[in-house]
Amino acid sequence: MPGAEADQTADTDTAATTVTAGLIVIGNEILSGRTRDANLQYLAESLNGIGIRMVEARVIPDDATTIVDTVNQLRARFDYVFTTGGIGPTHDDITSACVARAFGRDLIRDPEAEALLQAHYKPEDRTPARMKMADVPEGATLLDNPVSRAPGFQVENVFVLPGVPRILQAMFEGFKHRLAGGATVHSLTVASFTQEGTVAARLEALQAEYPEMEMGSYPFIRDGRPGSSLVIRGTDRARLEEAGEKLRRIVRDLGNEPFADVT
Amino acid sequence: MPGAEADQTADTDTAATTVTAGLIVIGNEILSGRTRDANLQYLAESLNGIGIRMVEARVIPDDATTIVDTVNQLRARFDYVFTTGGIGPTHDDITSACVARAFGRDLIRDPEAEALLQAHYKPEDRTPARMKMADVPEGATLLDNPVSRAPGFQVENVFVLPGVPRILQAMFEGFKHRLAGGATVHSLTVASFTQEGTVAARLEALQAEYPEMEMGSYPFIRDGRPGSSLVIRGTDRARLEEAGEKLRRIVRDLGNEPFADVT
Repeated sequence: MPGAEADQTADTDTAATTVTAGLIVIGNEILSGRTRDANLQYLAESLNGIGIRMVEARVIPDDATTIVDTVNQLRARFDYVFTTGGIGPTHDDITSACVARAFGRDLIRDPEAEALLQAHYKPEDRTPARMKMADVPEGATLLDNPVSRAPGFQVENVFVLPGVPRILQAMFEGFKHRLAGGATVHSLTVASFTQEGTVAARLEALQAEYPEMEMGSYPFIRDGRPGSSLVIRGTDRARLEEAGEKLRRIVRDLGNEPFADVT
Repeated sequence: MPGAEADQTADTDTAATTVTAGLIVIGNEILSGRTRDANLQYLAESLNGIGIRMVEARVIPDDATTIVDTVNQLRARFDYVFTTGGIGPTHDDITSACVARAFGRDLIRDPEAEALLQAHYKPEDRTPARMKMADVPEGATLLDNPVSRAPGFQVENVFVLPGVPRILQAMFEGFKHRLAGGATVHSLTVASFTQEGTVAARLEALQAEYPEMEMGSYPFIRDGRPGSSLVIRGTDRARLEEAGEKLRRIVRDLGNEPFADVT
């Protein structure tokens, strides 16, 4: 659980606790290319904002064995696990049943979820398929869905969310205050027309000087000219600013001015 | 290898060979939310077009042990494995070295790759960091990069590609004729203002009638009204059309007309 056996990715002795998350994106439509996932980026950024680090994401098909195994692998490795997709009313929505299996719990009709759906749908629309959305693993905690009512749920450190981005985001906003984050990771970007291959050696030396930070380099083309975004990430803001100032000096020393519109 | 131990995901006795692929997206920038991945969808669709099915994708950090382990897990499970990212000139580009480790091969300076880079860069730009992009696992086959020269490479069933979408796509176009695909999966979509919860039971019955196909349902809002895209995927075009016709009848029977602009 958060904080307890964390620290898997911490880099220094003095590091504040690192709280980790894994994401399981469930859906054949992502793996066929029909739909482009939008939830990974949203969750990665939102979790980062509350001091939780996404360490791995997996995209898997609507296959029961794969879902059960992946949930069990990831919930043992990370403080939090989030799943997206597969909790709607159709036959290919098997996530809730699979999460129940992963935890060895029964799938039960939750009275509160049932009442929510009954209040939301007219009697003629209360199909067995729709009412199935009230089935959750025994002992699960419901997650409020302010958009279309059918709830998500939490079992231990696993949060089961819908695939539709607008609903996922509204749901996440509703429960994120319950997540216990660790140290917030801040980032600083030095973007310029410095090419990666030119700055690489000095960036590596700077990384060696600040081993507790994570330095990355991302090439781009701007106004037809190649350049790079050099990104430093770390939890100590003062050290981050210090390393950033050194990086700006390196870039200027190579004859380039960092863009003012990127910080 | 393709065709040999395939058939993991085939649904019927008569199924044509299923050729599978796994994708490994390597990069802290995806897991922090800084960059939104665009390669999964491109590769999923492109592979699908040549009869190769993406069965799982993993997004992992720039961490050597994780990369080595993930490559070894996935190359044993799938006919093809593609990696994206981490083959540039900076210190955080460790994919090539990790793939070499995964195969127990030495990382060597490839003479052909070295010549490509020497021809591309002016003498003063031939930094050690840039020349590092000529290092590949011993025995690897180079993959041509028509955009920026630094090649990708193939070792057995693993294809190591860059993260920049434009370069990845140009590289993929260059070698895709060498991939051996199985039966092509065709798809058919019936989109209408039929809600998922209304059509779910009949869709499930239709799925039972065509067990070799994959039927999915994806909700949407169009002109402020809720609807669904019902998608059927399968390798037998005649059976697919037959099932599609039945699905259109179901939708009409529920009082909705399938959209003419979605097929």
